Amino acid sequence: MRPSGRQLNEMRPVSIETGFTKHAEGSCLIKVGDTHVLCTATIEDRVPPFIKGTGLGWVTAEYGMLPRATNTRMRREASSGKQGGRTVEIQRLIGRALRAGVDRVALGERQITVDCDVLQADGGTRCASITGGWVALRLAVNKLMKAGDVHIDPLLDPVSAVSCGIYAGQPVLDLDYPEDSEAGVDGNFIMTGSGKLIEVQMSAEGSVFSRDQMNELMDLAAKGAVELAEMQKAASK
Amino acid sequence: MRPSGRQLNEMRPVSIETGFTKHAEGSCLIKVGDTHVLCTATIEDRVPPFIKGTGLGWVTAEYGMLPRATNTRMRREASSGKQGGRTVEIQRLIGRALRAGVDRVALGERQITVDCDVLQADGGTRCASITGGWVALRLAVNKLMKAGDVHIDPLLDPVSAVSCGIYAGQPVLDLDYPEDSEAGVDGNFIMTGSGKLIEVQMSAEGSVFSRDQMNELMDLAAKGAVELAEMQKAASK
Amino acid sequence: MRPSGRQLNEMRPVSIETGFTKHAEGSCLIKVGDTHVLCTATIEDRVPPFIKGTGLGWVTAEYGMLPRATNTRMRREASSGKQGGRTVEIQRLIGRALRAGVDRVALGERQITVDCDVLQADGGTRCASITGGWVALRLAVNKLMKAGDVHIDPLLDPVSAVSCGIYAGQPVLDLDYPEDSEAGVDGNFIMTGSGKLIEVQMSAEGSVFSRDQMNELMDLAAKGAVELAEMQKAASK
Amino acid sequence: MRPSGRQLNEMRPVSIETGFTKHAEGSCLIKVGDTHVLCTATIEDRVPPFIKGTGLGWVTAEYGMLPRATNTRMRREASSGKQGGRTVEIQRLIGRALRAGVDRVALGERQITVDCDVLQADGGTRCASITGGWVALRLAVNKLMKAGDVHIDPLLDPVSAVSCGIYAGQPVLDLDYPEDSEAGVDGNFIMTGSGKLIEVQMSAEGSVFSRDQMNELMDLAAKGAVELAEMQKAASK
Amino acid sequence: MRPSGRQLNEMRPVSIETGFTKHAEGSCLIKVGDTHVLCTATIEDRVPPFIKGTGLGWVTAEYGMLPRATNTRMRREASSGKQGGRTVEIQRLIGRALRAGVDRVALGERQITVDCDVLQADGGTRCASITGGWVALRLAVNKLMKAGDVHIDPLLDPVSAVSCGIYAGQPVLDLDYPEDSEAGVDGNFIMTGSGKLIEVQMSAEGSVFSRDQMNELMDLAAKGAVELAEMQKAASK
Amino acid sequence: MRPSGRQLNEMRPVSIETGFTKHAEGSCLIKVGDTHVLCTATIEDRVPPFIKGTGLGWVTAEYGMLPRATNTRMRREASSGKQGGRTVEIQRLIGRALRAGVDRVALGERQITVDCDVLQADGGTRCASITGGWVALRLAVNKLMKAGDVHIDPLLDPVSAVSCGIYAGQPVLDLDYPEDSEAGVDGNFIMTGSGKLIEVQMSAEGSVFSRDQMNELMDLAAKGAVELAEMQKAASK
Repeated sequence: MRPSGRQLNEMRPVSIETGFTKHAEGSCLIKVGDTHVLCTATIEDRVPPFIKGTGLGWVTAEYGMLPRATNTRMRREASSGKQGGRTVEIQRLIGRALRAGVDRVALGERQITVDCDVLQADGGTRCASITGGWVALRLAVNKLMKAGDVHIDPLLDPVSAVSCGIYAGQPVLDLDYPEDSEAGVDGNFIMTGSGKLIEVQMSAEGSVFSRDQMNELMDLAAKGAVELAEMQKAASK
Repeated sequence: MRPSGRQLNEMRPVSIETGFTKHAEGSCLIKVGDTHVLCTATIEDRVPPFIKGTGLGWVTAEYGMLPRATNTRMRREASSGKQGGRTVEIQRLIGRALRAGVDRVALGERQITVDCDVLQADGGTRCASITGGWVALRLAVNKLMKAGDVHIDPLLDPVSAVSCGIYAGQPVLDLDYPEDSEAGVDGNFIMTGSGKLIEVQMSAEGSVFSRDQMNELMDLAAKGAVELAEMQKAASK
Repeated sequence: MRPSGRQLNEMRPVSIETGFTKHAEGSCLIKVGDTHVLCTATIEDRVPPFIKGTGLGWVTAEYGMLPRATNTRMRREASSGKQGGRTVEIQRLIGRALRAGVDRVALGERQITVDCDVLQADGGTRCASITGGWVALRLAVNKLMKAGDVHIDPLLDPVSAVSCGIYAGQPVLDLDYPEDSEAGVDGNFIMTGSGKLIEVQMSAEGSVFSRDQMNELMDLAAKGAVELAEMQKAASK
Repeated sequence: MRPSGRQLNEMRPVSIETGFTKHAEGSCLIKVGDTHVLCTATIEDRVPPFIKGTGLGWVTAEYGMLPRATNTRMRREASSGKQGGRTVEIQRLIGRALRAGVDRVALGERQITVDCDVLQADGGTRCASITGGWVALRLAVNKLMKAGDVHIDPLLDPVSAVSCGIYAGQPVLDLDYPEDSEAGVDGNFIMTGSGKLIEVQMSAEGSVFSRDQMNELMDLAAKGAVELAEMQKAASK
Repeated sequence: MRPSGRQLNEMRPVSIETGFTKHAEGSCLIKVGDTHVLCTATIEDRVPPFIKGTGLGWVTAEYGMLPRATNTRMRREASSGKQGGRTVEIQRLIGRALRAGVDRVALGERQITVDCDVLQADGGTRCASITGGWVALRLAVNKLMKAGDVHIDPLLDPVSAVSCGIYAGQPVLDLDYPEDSEAGVDGNFIMTGSGKLIEVQMSAEGSVFSRDQMNELMDLAAKGAVELAEMQKAASK
Repeated sequence: MRPSGRQLNEMRPVSIETGFTKHAEGSCLIKVGDTHVLCTATIEDRVPPFIKGTGLGWVTAEYGMLPRATNTRMRREASSGKQGGRTVEIQRLIGRALRAGVDRVALGERQITVDCDVLQADGGTRCASITGGWVALRLAVNKLMKAGDVHIDPLLDPVSAVSCGIYAGQPVLDLDYPEDSEAGVDGNFIMTGSGKLIEVQMSAEGSVFSRDQMNELMDLAAKGAVELAEMQKAASK
C-alpha cells in the first residue's frame, strides 16, 4: 500500500558512513533511503557571548540544502541573500534537539557546531540531520575525551528523530517524499535511545487530528527511535 | 504555588477588544494577562503565485514585537535588516494554524493576511496571536459574507492556542513569563473549538519528558481550548 | 469647509494616555484625532561611540508603522529587509527634535531611545510621534530624577510638533489625511512650549509658495504649539 | 569674520561646466567653492508603476558621495550594503525639489533620473546638487525638445538651493564646511528664479531659534537664489 | 621534493563518479586528490532576459563550499547574507569556461545551470569544479540528445582546468593546498581537450614573474589538460 | 582598420591630472581616451585584523562606476544593496596588482586604501584604475616619506595595466569600448615598469585561442607597459 512497498511500521534502509570528510572533528554521511545528509561537527574554543565565563558548553547547528538536492532546482540561499524561513526553523530545531542530549557542564566552555547539508532529498531531511548530526557530535566528543580535554562523557544517550504521519488513512513510520507530500497529518518525533521525548511537532495543514491518531503515531515513533539508536551506537563506537 | 497565585489549570484573564483599528477589515486587541497583541486582518484580491487560477483562497500571517514590548529593549527588526529566526518560526506557525481552520474553497481566490503585533509581552505571545488572529480573521470573513462576496462560511470552528508546561514539577496551564523562563518542558497546543488538534509543539531544551507528562499537558490544553473558543465566539458575533 | 468640519485654526481632539505599556521607563498612547501612536522611552547606560567618555547624554528615536495602520496594507519593513526612505527621514527628524529640548550635560552619559510606533494613521504621524515622544521622554526622565540618578532637570520646555498647510486655498492647522493628500503646500513645525522654533520643514511638491503664505502657516503653528504644550504638561505631571 | 573672509551675504565662487560626461543626456560639474558635484540626467521611457498610463512624467534623483570626498574616508555605501539615512534623506529632497519646477504634463510619460555624485565636499553638497541637478535636467530637456519629443517647455523657472545659518552670532549666506560644523542653526532654502519658495528646512540641533532669525536667513537666501538662477540660465543656454 | 612526493609534472589521482545524485539531469562527484566537488547540471526552459527570443542557449554556474570543507570552519554564506568576493569570482570563471566549450546555437534556447559544491577542499577547487562541471554538463546534454530535444551536439571538446605554480623554485603541476599556500606564483589554465586555451589567469601576490616562467607553467598545464580530457571522456560516455 | 583609426600597437592618448581632489593623501584623474577614472589614496593607521602586530603594511582597493558613466544608466550599487560580481572581481584585482608592487615591510603597519571611481567609461576601466591607482598610491607614499613616517621607499617600480585583444582578426593594443564589445579574445596584463609580469588574465568567452596568439598579445602589452610607466613617473614626481 505504501508507494515503496514498505510495511506501515517499517523504516527505510539507513546507513551511516563516518569520516566522510577529513577536516571535521566528527563527520558522517547518513543515508535514510534516498535522503542523504552530510553532517560535520566542528569544535571551537569560543562560545556565544551569553554563556561566556559560565563554564558551560554550547551545541548549535546549521542546515542547508544543495540547490539541486531536490527534484527541481531551488535558488541557492547564499545567492538570494538570506536563509529562508524553513531553513531557519529546521536549524533551530536541530540545535535544540542535540543540546537536549548534552551535559553542558561536562562539555566545558567550548562550542560544537553541527553542519547538516542535504546532498539529496527524499523526505525527512530534518530527521536525518538530527540522527546523523548526533553521530558527528559523538565522534567529535570522542576526540575531545581521547585528548583528555573532556573527562566525563557529556553525551549519555543517543538523540534521533523520525517522522510519522497519516498516509492514505493509515499511520505510517518514516515518510518518504511521495508520502510526505500527500499526508494530511504528520509529525517529527525527537527521542532519546531510552525512549524519552525531547521534542514533538505534529501538524495538520488544512486538516485536524485526534488524540488517538496522535497516540498511534507516537507508538510508531518509539519503535523507530529504538532502531535508530542502535545504528547510531554501532556507527560511532 | 504559581507566581501569579493561579490554580494549576487556571488561565490568565483574557479580554478581546474588537475594532481596535479602523482601517483593517477585521481587528482586535487581545489581552491574555499582561500579554497584549494587536491583530488585524487584511483582505486582498491577489493570491500567491502557486495558487493563481485554482479558485482556492489563502490565509497567511506576519508577526512582530515592538522593540520595547519586552523587559529590555530588543533591536527593531526593520532596522537590523531581517526578521530573526524566532519571528520567522512564529509567523509560519500562526499562518499554518489559521489555514487549518479555513475552507479554502469556500473562501474563494483571495488572500487574507493576519498581522499580529505584540504591544506588550509577558509570555505566550504566539498563542495569543493565534487566538486573537482568528477573531480578526472571523471579522474580516463576516464582512465578506455580509457583502455577498462569500456565500458559504469558510470558518467552521474557532482556532485557538494555549501553552502548557511543567513548572516547579507541576503541569500548569497558560504559562506567563516568570513561569515560561523557568519551565524545563513546555508546549504550544493549537486546537479547534470542538477539541480537535491542529498542531502540537512540545519541547524540552536541555531536558527530556515522558509520554505521561505529555498527556497531562494535553489534558490541560483541552480545557483551555474550550474556554478560549467561547471567548472568541462571544467577541466576534 | 474642512472635511472634518473643523475651524481653520482648530486642531483635532488630542488625548495622551500615559503608562500604556508596563515595561518601558516612560510610555504613552497619543491620539491626535484618528492618528494613534504608541511612544515608549527606554533608558540605557551605554551611549553611541562618538560621545563615549564625554559625560554627555544622547536621545535618539525610531519610528515604525504597523502594516495595517493605513488604509491599504503596507509591506512590513522587517520583512522587506530595510527601513524605507520615509521611515528613515521621519525617525531622524524625531531624534533631532527631541534632542533640541534636552540639556545633554544634565542628562549625563546615558542614552534614551524613544520608539514611536503608529498603530493607526490618519495624517500627521510624525508630529504626533514628536509630541507623544516628548511625553514618554519626560516620564523616563522623571524616573531618573526620582531615583536620584539625575539631579538637574534636563528637560526645560516641552517639544511638540504640528502640521499646517494650504488646503482648498486656505491655511489650516493640523491636517488630517484627507486634507494632507490634497494640500499642495504643507509644513511641519517643531516648537517649544515657549514659542521658540526647533525645526521648520515646508514643502510644495509640484508647486511653490510665497513668504506670505509661509507666515500664515507659522502663525497657525504657533497657536497649536501652545495648546499641545499644555496637554503635554498635564499628561506628564 | 568668516573663515573664508567672505562678506556675510556673499556666496562662494560658483562655476558650472556642462557636458562633463559624454554619455548622459545632460551633465555638468558644478563647483560651489570647494564643493564639487557631478550631475547627470538620464532620460528613460519607462515610468514608475504608480503613474503608468497617466501621461504624466516623473523626475527622480539619486545622491552619492565618493568615499574620499570628505576629510576622512567614509565607508562606500555599495560595500556596506545600504544607503545611509543621510543619503536617503538628501536624494528624496533633490527629487522633490526638481519635480516642483517641472510641468509633468508637458514632460509627457517619461522619467528623468538626475544623479548627483559628490567628488569633493566642503559643505552644502545637497544645495549644490539641486542647483547643478537642475542644469543637467535643463540640458536633457533641451535635447528632448530639439528632437521634437517634447513640444511645450516643461521647465519654466530655474530651481536652485542655498544654505544659510547663524554663524558666530551672525546670519551668513552659503555656509562652507568650517561654518557648517559650528553653526547652531542652519537651513536649506530651495527657490525658483522668480523668488518663489519650494522647500524650506530649518533646523537647530541642540538649540532653538526665533522667527526674526528665520526671517533674516530667508532674506539672505532670496539674494542667493537670484544669483544662482542667473548662473544656471547662462550655463544651460 | 613536493610534500606529496609527486613528480613535478604529476597530477594527483583523479576519480569521477557519475550519477552521484538522482535528481539532477547530470551529476558527478569529482575527486582530485583530497579535493572533492559535487557537480550537478540542471536543465531549464527559461533563459536570462538578455537572450530571450534569440534562439541561443545559456550555461551558467554557481559555486559553494560547505562550511567545514576546509581545515577551519568558514562562516556559511547563506547565513552571512551574501556570497563573498572569492565565491563570486570563482563562479563567474566556471560559467565563462563552460560556455566557451558550448555551441549555443546547437543547444537551443534553454539554460543549463551547473552547481559546484565543494564537500572537501585541498587546493584547486575551482579547477576541479570546471573539470567535473563539464562532465555534469555533458551528461545533461546527452539526456537532451537522447530525448531528441537537441539534434547537433553542442559540446565539441571537453573543457578542463588545472593549476600550476612555482613551488620551492620549481614549476609544478596541480598544486595541492600545502603547495598552494606557499607558492609565490600560480595560475589556472582552462583548456580544451585539443589543447586550445580558453582562459589563463596567472598571478603573483606580492611578487612578479617572467615570461619564461609563464611558458614553463603553460607546458605543464598542457600536459594536464590532455590527461583530464581523457578522464572526462571516459566518465561521460 | 580600428574604429578609432589607431595603429594596431598604438595606445589611446593618456593624461594624468594629479591633486584632483584636495582631501585625499594622493589623488589623480586619469584619462585613457574617453575612459576617465578618479583615483584617491587614503592612509590609515589601522590594518586588517590578520596582520595586526606583524609590522607589515597593507594596500587594498575599491572600485565603483557612477550610474551614468556608461552609455545606458546602470543601477546604483549602493541602492541595489550590494556590489555586483563584476565590481567585486575588479576591485580584488586592483588590490592584488598594487600590493605586488609594494614592499610591505618598508611601508610599515598601516593601510592605504585606493578608491577608483569611474566617471566616464569607454573600455579598459580596470586597467586605467590600476595605472591611475598606482599614481595616487605613489603620491600618498611620497607624503609619508616627506613626513618621515616611512624611511625606505616601499614602491620600487610602477605598476600599470593594459588590455590587448584580437579585434577583427588582428592583435591590438588598448581596446576601447567598440573594440572590446567585438573582440572574441582579450586579456588584461599587469606589469611593472621593468617589464616583469604581475598578473595575466586572458579569456575567450565563446571562443578559444592559441599560444601563438597569446604571445602576440603579450608583446603588445609589454610595449604598452613601458609607455605607461613613463607617464606614471612623470605625473608623480
